[in-house]
Amino acid sequence: MTKHAFPFSAIVGQSEMKEAMILTAIDPGIGGVLVFGDRGTGKSTAVRALAALLPPIQAVAGCPTNAATLKDCPDWANIIDDQVIEKPTPVIDLPLGATEDRVVGALDIEKALTKGEKAFEAGLLARANRGYLYIDEVNLLEDHIVDLLLDVAQSGENVVEREGLSIRHDAKFVLVGSGNPEEGELRPQLLDRFGLSVDVGSPKDIDERVEVIKRRDAFETNTGPFMTHWTGEDAQLRDKIMQGRTALPAVKTPDSTLRDCAELCVALGSDGLRGELTLLRTARAYAAFNQDGEITREHLRHVAPMALRHRLRRDPLDDAGSSARVARTVTEVLG
Amino acid sequence: MTKHAFPFSAIVGQSEMKEAMILTAIDPGIGGVLVFGDRGTGKSTAVRALAALLPPIQAVAGCPTNAATLKDCPDWANIIDDQVIEKPTPVIDLPLGATEDRVVGALDIEKALTKGEKAFEAGLLARANRGYLYIDEVNLLEDHIVDLLLDVAQSGENVVEREGLSIRHDAKFVLVGSGNPEEGELRPQLLDRFGLSVDVGSPKDIDERVEVIKRRDAFETNTGPFMTHWTGEDAQLRDKIMQGRTALPAVKTPDSTLRDCAELCVALGSDGLRGELTLLRTARAYAAFNQDGEITREHLRHVAPMALRHRLRRDPLDDAGSSARVARTVTEVLG
Amino acid sequence: MTKHAFPFSAIVGQSEMKEAMILTAIDPGIGGVLVFGDRGTGKSTAVRALAALLPPIQAVAGCPTNAATLKDCPDWANIIDDQVIEKPTPVIDLPLGATEDRVVGALDIEKALTKGEKAFEAGLLARANRGYLYIDEVNLLEDHIVDLLLDVAQSGENVVEREGLSIRHDAKFVLVGSGNPEEGELRPQLLDRFGLSVDVGSPKDIDERVEVIKRRDAFETNTGPFMTHWTGEDAQLRDKIMQGRTALPAVKTPDSTLRDCAELCVALGSDGLRGELTLLRTARAYAAFNQDGEITREHLRHVAPMALRHRLRRDPLDDAGSSARVARTVTEVLG
Amino acid sequence: MTKHAFPFSAIVGQSEMKEAMILTAIDPGIGGVLVFGDRGTGKSTAVRALAALLPPIQAVAGCPTNAATLKDCPDWANIIDDQVIEKPTPVIDLPLGATEDRVVGALDIEKALTKGEKAFEAGLLARANRGYLYIDEVNLLEDHIVDLLLDVAQSGENVVEREGLSIRHDAKFVLVGSGNPEEGELRPQLLDRFGLSVDVGSPKDIDERVEVIKRRDAFETNTGPFMTHWTGEDAQLRDKIMQGRTALPAVKTPDSTLRDCAELCVALGSDGLRGELTLLRTARAYAAFNQDGEITREHLRHVAPMALRHRLRRDPLDDAGSSARVARTVTEVLG
Amino acid sequence: MTKHAFPFSAIVGQSEMKEAMILTAIDPGIGGVLVFGDRGTGKSTAVRALAALLPPIQAVAGCPTNAATLKDCPDWANIIDDQVIEKPTPVIDLPLGATEDRVVGALDIEKALTKGEKAFEAGLLARANRGYLYIDEVNLLEDHIVDLLLDVAQSGENVVEREGLSIRHDAKFVLVGSGNPEEGELRPQLLDRFGLSVDVGSPKDIDERVEVIKRRDAFETNTGPFMTHWTGEDAQLRDKIMQGRTALPAVKTPDSTLRDCAELCVALGSDGLRGELTLLRTARAYAAFNQDGEITREHLRHVAPMALRHRLRRDPLDDAGSSARVARTVTEVLG
Amino acid sequence: MTKHAFPFSAIVGQSEMKEAMILTAIDPGIGGVLVFGDRGTGKSTAVRALAALLPPIQAVAGCPTNAATLKDCPDWANIIDDQVIEKPTPVIDLPLGATEDRVVGALDIEKALTKGEKAFEAGLLARANRGYLYIDEVNLLEDHIVDLLLDVAQSGENVVEREGLSIRHDAKFVLVGSGNPEEGELRPQLLDRFGLSVDVGSPKDIDERVEVIKRRDAFETNTGPFMTHWTGEDAQLRDKIMQGRTALPAVKTPDSTLRDCAELCVALGSDGLRGELTLLRTARAYAAFNQDGEITREHLRHVAPMALRHRLRRDPLDDAGSSARVARTVTEVLG
Repeated sequence: MTKHAFPFSAIVGQSEMKEAMILTAIDPGIGGVLVFGDRGTGKSTAVRALAALLPPIQAVAGCPTNAATLKDCPDWANIIDDQVIEKPTPVIDLPLGATEDRVVGALDIEKALTKGEKAFEAGLLARANRGYLYIDEVNLLEDHIVDLLLDVAQSGENVVEREGLSIRHDAKFVLVGSGNPEEGELRPQLLDRFGLSVDVGSPKDIDERVEVIKRRDAFETNTGPFMTHWTGEDAQLRDKIMQGRTALPAVKTPDSTLRDCAELCVALGSDGLRGELTLLRTARAYAAFNQDGEITREHLRHVAPMALRHRLRRDPLDDAGSSARVARTVTEVLG
Repeated sequence: MTKHAFPFSAIVGQSEMKEAMILTAIDPGIGGVLVFGDRGTGKSTAVRALAALLPPIQAVAGCPTNAATLKDCPDWANIIDDQVIEKPTPVIDLPLGATEDRVVGALDIEKALTKGEKAFEAGLLARANRGYLYIDEVNLLEDHIVDLLLDVAQSGENVVEREGLSIRHDAKFVLVGSGNPEEGELRPQLLDRFGLSVDVGSPKDIDERVEVIKRRDAFETNTGPFMTHWTGEDAQLRDKIMQGRTALPAVKTPDSTLRDCAELCVALGSDGLRGELTLLRTARAYAAFNQDGEITREHLRHVAPMALRHRLRRDPLDDAGSSARVARTVTEVLG
Repeated sequence: MTKHAFPFSAIVGQSEMKEAMILTAIDPGIGGVLVFGDRGTGKSTAVRALAALLPPIQAVAGCPTNAATLKDCPDWANIIDDQVIEKPTPVIDLPLGATEDRVVGALDIEKALTKGEKAFEAGLLARANRGYLYIDEVNLLEDHIVDLLLDVAQSGENVVEREGLSIRHDAKFVLVGSGNPEEGELRPQLLDRFGLSVDVGSPKDIDERVEVIKRRDAFETNTGPFMTHWTGEDAQLRDKIMQGRTALPAVKTPDSTLRDCAELCVALGSDGLRGELTLLRTARAYAAFNQDGEITREHLRHVAPMALRHRLRRDPLDDAGSSARVARTVTEVLG
Repeated sequence: MTKHAFPFSAIVGQSEMKEAMILTAIDPGIGGVLVFGDRGTGKSTAVRALAALLPPIQAVAGCPTNAATLKDCPDWANIIDDQVIEKPTPVIDLPLGATEDRVVGALDIEKALTKGEKAFEAGLLARANRGYLYIDEVNLLEDHIVDLLLDVAQSGENVVEREGLSIRHDAKFVLVGSGNPEEGELRPQLLDRFGLSVDVGSPKDIDERVEVIKRRDAFETNTGPFMTHWTGEDAQLRDKIMQGRTALPAVKTPDSTLRDCAELCVALGSDGLRGELTLLRTARAYAAFNQDGEITREHLRHVAPMALRHRLRRDPLDDAGSSARVARTVTEVLG
Repeated sequence: MTKHAFPFSAIVGQSEMKEAMILTAIDPGIGGVLVFGDRGTGKSTAVRALAALLPPIQAVAGCPTNAATLKDCPDWANIIDDQVIEKPTPVIDLPLGATEDRVVGALDIEKALTKGEKAFEAGLLARANRGYLYIDEVNLLEDHIVDLLLDVAQSGENVVEREGLSIRHDAKFVLVGSGNPEEGELRPQLLDRFGLSVDVGSPKDIDERVEVIKRRDAFETNTGPFMTHWTGEDAQLRDKIMQGRTALPAVKTPDSTLRDCAELCVALGSDGLRGELTLLRTARAYAAFNQDGEITREHLRHVAPMALRHRLRRDPLDDAGSSARVARTVTEVLG
Repeated sequence: MTKHAFPFSAIVGQSEMKEAMILTAIDPGIGGVLVFGDRGTGKSTAVRALAALLPPIQAVAGCPTNAATLKDCPDWANIIDDQVIEKPTPVIDLPLGATEDRVVGALDIEKALTKGEKAFEAGLLARANRGYLYIDEVNLLEDHIVDLLLDVAQSGENVVEREGLSIRHDAKFVLVGSGNPEEGELRPQLLDRFGLSVDVGSPKDIDERVEVIKRRDAFETNTGPFMTHWTGEDAQLRDKIMQGRTALPAVKTPDSTLRDCAELCVALGSDGLRGELTLLRTARAYAAFNQDGEITREHLRHVAPMALRHRLRRDPLDDAGSSARVARTVTEVLG
């Protein structure tokens, strides 16, 4: 029995969240996405839907890091046969109660006991390579784990030093974390390391709510026909994403864009330079998604909120929410 | 010696609790039931009585997840023989002091030691598949365990990542949790994930109390005749539940019902969309139980309290209890 | 060298404590006894004295649960030989520092190491079956352990889910807990689960104190003659208890008694229905002890304090102690 | 090289501490001694000195509990040969950092690993049998350990339930605990379980201090001649103690003594009856030490402070120290 | 695939941080460098860049401490073959979640299990020998770990006493720690043990920010040409560092310099004498870097801020930052 | 490569610290030395320098406790060969992170695993026998460890009761602890158990500071000639210490000296009698060091500050530091 993911296109509203996910699918270098919102607003559904939408990856059969070619598969995996197969884009959940050794990998106890040899057994970070790692309620995790996940997500490499093992392997994935702003906040230092952030909420409009219930109820009680209906829409979006990936390297970056990025970040008082770099890459991915050959102020305006909103210093004299402050500053700086 | 469960029909009063349990027996997709009330009000008795009332299930002999057919039984169970037997509907208690590895399952130490191989030993979540998992005083459990149980209950799947094991298996059960409101509250986020909630209390009426004592005393000191007397009533209720299960898929859902659900939840200010979806499914199960072909406002009115009561935001300006607030809003919205 | 228990009959005063223990010896279904009082008031002495007074039990030789017949002895005990022997009524102490695995039972490490097989090794709960489990300073135990002990005491069954074991066995015992009210209280929820409660104190009367010291000093320094003297009195009490056990099932319960129980509990505001049920059973045991054929208001009056005292809600407007409140209410309701 | 203990007779002053130790040497049933006082006041020296003073015991060779005869040596010790040897009276120190398993005994790991069998390895409680157990700074131990030690000291038996072992053995010893009143107090419940308590302090008198320094310096720098000098005085004291032991059973206890004990304790408001019983036994031992044939008021007067001082309830209206309160009450009651 | 380090010369601004790193490369005896600043200011990039810039080291093949000759390689490494190879200067990251045994080294479990012998397995401290150890957010580590790292860094030797191992080996490395002053401070005692400290920040100047973004973006999206461009500049700097190392021993230290150091530190109120010693060595390294034959006041003036800034006592009457206070005092003392 | 210790004689200033160490070298029975002062004041240097200055000891080859003769080497060490060799006086560092089992010794895991036998593996306390145990920042250790170390230091014996081992061995060493008064204090009870205490600080005098830097810089950059220069001075001091050891037993102690000690301690209000005893022994060692045949008031005056300073009760009405209070009292009492 195959479990169907809810179709990405059938998600009602939530356009900023969907767009953030699409842009990181075009350029995973943008970094992770942090989704703020109440439970029951479909955050987990969306990431699973996006991965189901993307084309399968080519991977060496049996390789724990889903390596594309035999030489990219780490030595410790002991894969010899160069057979490449097709796999769905991995979406790895960090389940509640997963122990740290299962996250980063650990000594393979079975081999240690039966053969007396020290072998590495890959963890979730390896399995997420070339895909997505989803963490529900990232604000409930301890800081040092979030820190570790962000380190790995950013460097694209998992370094393990434990139990006499000294291992490193590729771990290039997009980290998607969901958080409930009412249950404790992330430290600013952690916030800053997510590429994008979006707010989601339950629709307040009755018609939209009815539409959500109707689609959800149809998906659960009338699955077959419902999937058939939305498969087409998903296919169109997939094509547009793949075209965006192709177009990305050729998108031009005028010097004025760099200056705009810098001025915007200085005006907003964001620390460090991660703000500028993320804004630049996100705008470039957005341009590529739209098949535009060069980054324009319009692109910057569009993506600035999701790239910068979570990097503002708290301003005790300014009551406006962070989205409003970004919007106002964008208008002041970019016109 | 067989231990008898107290007959479900012999429970005096507590009609809302009994109804909530019946409706989740018709559609387990409604989700778990949270029972609020003092100790000594028969919460544990009720869930055991309901399971004893339901017809036995067909299950592959020896399969730790009670799978109905050999292909649904997980690989790691190593069941080869396709023999199907009859079993009572499982009711699994989470006993005090059960260790976490016994809940989710763990490495089979015996096999690890004697055969040097890594085998999975199923936990309580596996044994509860296709039945009930009962947790007394759910509010005394740590949040992350409740979270885990609710995750599994909702997804119908237990995912284990520990000790070098990477296992998943069916775990479709109805979670019944009891809580004493005087001993610390569940976080709103956890409350929202239970499908239904009911309040129970000791009867204040002397005659009703006498009736409870009399039946309980008869059950304990005069078991045989007492059971004979109530077996018939239980059989009638069982038939009605089974007919409801059969009728459920054909119950019609008018568009106005979806709109009613949405308006009710918006008026009550419940976050997310779990309120609407649960209200819809519960009303549909209630219609099926009554052999009605279509959901009506009457059905919504009847089940709204148990489906929505625990999802209200606290309103500091409104002193009314949550049951009263639901009732008032139902009247305002549905007339 | 045999260690003598202090003779039950030689205990000076403390009549309510002695009576509560006698009644649970007649009907163990009444539940545990909670004894409040300072250290040095002979609580531990009393429970040991009662068990020494009771006739020995018939039990299958070697059976860890003291089962009366081979078929009642659990499978995991691997007892084959149907030999029945006589044993003193067990009194099991929960010694300070006993580890949890010794209380509920655990994996037999020796068998696991030497034979590589998973066998169960019974704990104190098994050994207490058909006898008494005594816990000194129950209020110093952690709540979850007390809860566990009360669960087992009430259900008469010990369910173990740990270390890959899934075991259940009979554990029918009377739990006797002593507590010092000055060292922290039990939660109301735990109090309610004890059947009876009594207060003990050091006698204030000089003659009574002298009598205590004299008997205690004689027991310690002149053991033989002292025991001879009191053996006869103990024998008479034993006979009366055994006759009470025989008479118990035939004691009649008029409907007015049920109503009296209910009205008394409602008037006292005790939560749940455990109050009524315990009052009823205790009165019945008291009638049997006195060889009365039917429960009367006199019986209810006599046992109401020990059955209800610990179930009252605290009343901030009523300064009277709980014993006084029960007495006053008994007079108001029963005349 | 033999290490010499400082001679008991050479201890300057501290007469109440020395007397308390002598009386428990005559009747160990009096219970433990609690010594309050600053560090550096010779508490540890005194207990070691007393044990060195006492005559050696006769014990079965190799028996871990120092049993006097083969049949008193526990089965698990596997001693076969009935050879009896002479040993010094044991003084066991509870060293800082001793683990709990070494105190009560534990599974013998070596035998478990090499022979696969579950054997018991006796702990410090076994080794202290028939001697002294000394705990420095008893108030720094956790309450549950002190409780355990007092339980064993009082019952004379060590019951072990752990790691699949179920062991009991004799553990009759006098517990001597030292405490610094400035570093946290013992709970009243623990205080009450010590038989006697004494206060020690550094002498304020210069001549006495000079004498202490001189003897200590001589002991350390001129050991041989110093020991020779004091051996004679120690021998006289030993004889007097042994004669007291012999005389003890014949000491008469007039009824008026019992009444005096009771009235004294009631007047002092000591809880429970441990006060009376200890006072009685201590007075009897004191009479025996003095070769008096009957307990008199004089004996009671003399030992009342050490037997009762630590059992008083704190009286907020009475500023006098506990020693003063006992003295005053003794005068009021006994004249 | 080779991963390129960002070229040291291509780092925009941050001149004090770069200079501090260069000086410790010339004289590692100066001690560690503490870099204060927000995340995203390129601290980790800089240390990696410096190590990539330095010439490779000559090391015995397979020696875990990168020893230059076979006799310097510790016995426990069991290296027999005297083959010397070229290795890049090691930069060891203390990854988040590295366990303490991996830092200092530990028992080699594999050898213990398979061969039953106790062998040492070197940790990160061994691997960092002759190179750099980088700790991100050193202020988030527990004090005792920082203390341990500083001890080893200062003594140049790692002493291990654990698990029955007693090992010591060379561990000469420069410790580079980064810290965010907003997230908790280091204790003064730890601060004092770092040789140098520098503050870094994001550039406030738009042109400089644009330059940073441009170079970073070029490095990431146009790596080859970018590296080619900067390789030359790095080579020049490398030569200058190597010439400095050569010149260092011959740099003269006038007595007036010692006096200047002492007066400066007394004036600044720095505790201990680490301030003077570090100032002296840093000035000497700075002179050598500039090919000056003798330390002058100019050298002292230049390096005083980085050598002393973190050793000031907090002065409640002086609001100036520590950099300003050092500068002012330098002017007062040295003119 | 030999590591040189900094020459004891080359330490600038710090005369009281040096003298305290010299006196404990003459009479280790004086007890440990506690050195208060900021980091960077050369405490660790001094202890290492002193040990390097002392003549080597004669010890049985391979004996873990450095025993002088085979019969003093403990049985468990299994040394058979009576070969005596020369070893430097041991200085053992308690390294940060040393586990408790390495301090006191523990079961030898290797032997337990490979031979199945329980052998003891000596810890740091054994290795420190006949030498020095140095603890940096003793105030950062947990109280119970400091207590344990002081117990062993005082009794000269390490008693181990753990893991089924029951071991005792000589552990006669001088404990030198350094502490920073700004980082939390030792409890008075622990303070009292150190024999001597001294304060050290950085010199305030510029010339002295310059001298320190010059010597330190010469030691580090010009080691050979520097060592040659100071070896002679160290040799003279060594001879003087050895002559003091020889002279010690013959130093006379007039009765008036004992009285002076007692009066001084009473006047200072030091608890217990450790003050007097330590003062006496320190004065005697000081007399021996100076080849004086009898203790005089001058000797007492000289050593009183280091012997008594840390034993004063805090006096809220006396603002003077403890050194000043000792000095003033010495003048008042001794004239």
